[in-house]
Amino acid sequence: MARVYNFNAGPAALPLPVLEKAQAEMLDIAGSGMSVMELSHRSKDFQAIIDAAEAGVRKLLGVSDDYAVLFMQGGASLQFASIPMNLRRPGKSADFVDTGSWASKAIKEAKVTGGVNVVWSGKEESYMRTPKPEELNFSADAEYVHICSNETIGGIRFPEFPKTNVPLIADMSSEIMSRAIDVNQFGMIYAGAQKNIGPSGLALVIIRKDLIERTPENVPIFLRYKTHADEGSLYNTPNTWGIYIVKLITDWMESIGGIAGMQKINEGKAGKLYSVLDSSNFWKAPADKASRSIMNVVWRLPSEELEAKFVSEAKNAGMIGLKGHRSVGGIRASIYNAVPVEAIDALIAFMKDFESKNG
Amino acid sequence: MARVYNFNAGPAALPLPVLEKAQAEMLDIAGSGMSVMELSHRSKDFQAIIDAAEAGVRKLLGVSDDYAVLFMQGGASLQFASIPMNLRRPGKSADFVDTGSWASKAIKEAKVTGGVNVVWSGKEESYMRTPKPEELNFSADAEYVHICSNETIGGIRFPEFPKTNVPLIADMSSEIMSRAIDVNQFGMIYAGAQKNIGPSGLALVIIRKDLIERTPENVPIFLRYKTHADEGSLYNTPNTWGIYIVKLITDWMESIGGIAGMQKINEGKAGKLYSVLDSSNFWKAPADKASRSIMNVVWRLPSEELEAKFVSEAKNAGMIGLKGHRSVGGIRASIYNAVPVEAIDALIAFMKDFESKNG
Repeated sequence: MARVYNFNAGPAALPLPVLEKAQAEMLDIAGSGMSVMELSHRSKDFQAIIDAAEAGVRKLLGVSDDYAVLFMQGGASLQFASIPMNLRRPGKSADFVDTGSWASKAIKEAKVTGGVNVVWSGKEESYMRTPKPEELNFSADAEYVHICSNETIGGIRFPEFPKTNVPLIADMSSEIMSRAIDVNQFGMIYAGAQKNIGPSGLALVIIRKDLIERTPENVPIFLRYKTHADEGSLYNTPNTWGIYIVKLITDWMESIGGIAGMQKINEGKAGKLYSVLDSSNFWKAPADKASRSIMNVVWRLPSEELEAKFVSEAKNAGMIGLKGHRSVGGIRASIYNAVPVEAIDALIAFMKDFESKNG
Repeated sequence: MARVYNFNAGPAALPLPVLEKAQAEMLDIAGSGMSVMELSHRSKDFQAIIDAAEAGVRKLLGVSDDYAVLFMQGGASLQFASIPMNLRRPGKSADFVDTGSWASKAIKEAKVTGGVNVVWSGKEESYMRTPKPEELNFSADAEYVHICSNETIGGIRFPEFPKTNVPLIADMSSEIMSRAIDVNQFGMIYAGAQKNIGPSGLALVIIRKDLIERTPENVPIFLRYKTHADEGSLYNTPNTWGIYIVKLITDWMESIGGIAGMQKINEGKAGKLYSVLDSSNFWKAPADKASRSIMNVVWRLPSEELEAKFVSEAKNAGMIGLKGHRSVGGIRASIYNAVPVEAIDALIAFMKDFESKNG
């Protein structure tokens, strides 16, 4: 068995110690004589797991009791629909910042059910940067402001988050728990788990408790945040396996120094890679430097032929997931929390060798 | 490591060979060097898994090309909301048969967004039976008829399904793939996976393709069946782990003779258990005999004290999940596909011993 270096954009690499623990416990979790998948979600054994997962998230991100922490299904894509249904009351509108593919998808979904103001768009600049604070003029009567804090496809992020008078809502799917944030700056944070904190099929929602009460009466019961908050994410059967993996990942993150430790490692990994990209004209990283993501590093080679060769030879060398998104081409290395430093070192060694042979 | 006999109502027992295979492949699926959780949902490796899962479902249940097979998130509970949003057009109503807790939950959710006709309810009879065909007078203009084909809490099922002029929609969460059915009798079948075909966090939807076109325009993109059907359940990142387990389970079911083999085993397991319950006045199985579920067997003992003692001593003997649902009390053994015959034999031996000591 040879494990590869996994640069997938998501679902993505998981920490090896987490996989090994899940493997060891597969037939018997905590002496129960059952797989975690076979536990009743109403059992004490599972309650201990979901409580630990929530406590792990709260501790790592510093989430106060003013916020509910929910484990939901449907990924970020269901949140694109749920947020306007719950938080944008009839006849009102919400502000959106369009920084790329994921922000656009949220906008498209929100338009189906009501008013949307796109207050800034990077589309004409090919989504190479996030906006500066002075470029953002929010609507006075917006119900909320929505951003995607890190765009996986363009490889850009908000270095700092906009100041808003209304609740700020952020899709953090591709960077949740990768750097320190002040949760209190947000009305709501959400993330599909499959990039940084778990497997696919699970979404983490952190929502200020007063917002939970905003939902109009005609919203289906299942789609109301209050339904899940009132029942501790157990209104219906949750993704128990996914929550278990989140619990293992929060344990793993604590063991390596929490968010502060993780951020330091992540900045080191991204810094090394951007240094190589900046060191030669062979590589071109199109994202604006101030907006560079530390999770998704995107670059081009002198030709599409060389890019295809790079991806193919990297794969043969045990490095997978390096092909850029089909909408922008090029190369993309997604270097989430679970991608180890040695994967970056291997990639850089491969890049230097590739450049020497093809440059 | 001692595995227990697991009579949980859901999440429930999984086949041991499935767990062992998932364990063996945890760090490396199909020579990819990755866990299945680490595969891109756009990769060939994952496409092979979801294709195999769909093919397995289609073969086992005999699903024709007139139907889409979808792997969705949110369990049956999200379907309770999605079905009326998609299939009950504005100003119209749908017929519901109220056979218990789960049918009622579907009714409650459907009422939030539009017209509901409850054409029959077993509530006043404490949900001890499903209706006879002649008791069902459907509305001429209903958009569809909704049933829950097997109620886990009351332990009752439809021995045969109602004949309807409009699409029949069945929540089969607690009996999917446990007995032969004619899919062509239904407009749609859906099931949370966590009882008979996989882990929680996944819902199987089998929907007639013409119905997919019915959705009103104001339904959010994510909540439209067409969105997921058009993209082969890959509109967004699905629950890849759950789909993988479904694939392993359909393989396992094929290996033991498909639905016909499974049904024979299930009828044998349930028959043995009901025989014991019918053999003595110590036990009382309240469900009407014609409506008896072969998945969830519910019974009472002479007193609540004896019931508590039964559950407690069974647990000490390695049999868990036997406490009846809090809304009805008593004992419940959920004996889904993955509960082996030896678990039933162990339970029966325990019951005979318990009766001899306490009868």
